[in-house]
Amino acid sequence: MGSHVRLGTALLITLLASAPVVEGADPLPTASLLAVDADWEQAYAAKNLNNALAFCDDEASMLFPNAPIISGKAAVSKAIADDMASNDLTWHANRAGIARSRDLGYTSGVYVMKFKDASGKVKVDNGKFLTLWKRQADGTWKMLYEAANSDLPVSSP
Amino acid sequence: MGSHVRLGTALLITLLASAPVVEGADPLPTASLLAVDADWEQAYAAKNLNNALAFCDDEASMLFPNAPIISGKAAVSKAIADDMASNDLTWHANRAGIARSRDLGYTSGVYVMKFKDASGKVKVDNGKFLTLWKRQADGTWKMLYEAANSDLPVSSP
Repeated sequence: MGSHVRLGTALLITLLASAPVVEGADPLPTASLLAVDADWEQAYAAKNLNNALAFCDDEASMLFPNAPIISGKAAVSKAIADDMASNDLTWHANRAGIARSRDLGYTSGVYVMKFKDASGKVKVDNGKFLTLWKRQADGTWKMLYEAANSDLPVSSP
Repeated sequence: MGSHVRLGTALLITLLASAPVVEGADPLPTASLLAVDADWEQAYAAKNLNNALAFCDDEASMLFPNAPIISGKAAVSKAIADDMASNDLTWHANRAGIARSRDLGYTSGVYVMKFKDASGKVKVDNGKFLTLWKRQADGTWKMLYEAANSDLPVSSP
């Protein structure tokens, strides 16, 4: 029995110390990160600024098309408020991944953005996004980077 | 001595098994990831397709503006070849982060893209990007996701 215990301990050390950790033994919670993304989308689509901001890291950056990078909570807050005022944005993440250390993850998917042009006509933009998530000390995931761009040709919509 | 060894083993198991790992004790190699990004940029800017593709994960996706998401090595190869044929692209990453497990990381920075419009006039686009990197079994970092968009107003350049 003693030798079995020692062998088990050595095996455990080897498994823990070697990279990569065997995947599947302890599944990474990608489904839960997709659920967080869906909760963020719900707050954003409902244009609840405070609830949407609660999903953003203090050091968050957003890469919106046709504007320089936006960094930090104050700038992110203004950008999201402006976006909510001008556009009806919805999205759906269909891919996700998480680091084995569970401190960094990503989601990616598609968005639909409706807005009015200068003449008041409703236009629809379709595009895609990549979101980087950082796990906080309290275990919650918050958006660290967000980048999106249109699928449509330059002249559209 | 024997008890010291056992204590050391128990401590080692605890350190390896518990999350989060103490940060700072073993600095994350963000500088080396920035160096990988710079090497990729060099291959890309030199329009060496094979060398540029060597930095791409087999499952890589690229989010180029004004086109649907591009996924998989064959589609990525075609997209990069088309980009090299039409544009002179250079970039510089100025931020990076790495998961504690060192299997996922990101870089972000700015790009300059020169191209000719329909009349043959050289135009310059300035923008930003977010790149997600996945560490391979052999220890190399490869691009898993890349998203970029312009800083310029819609009507430019």
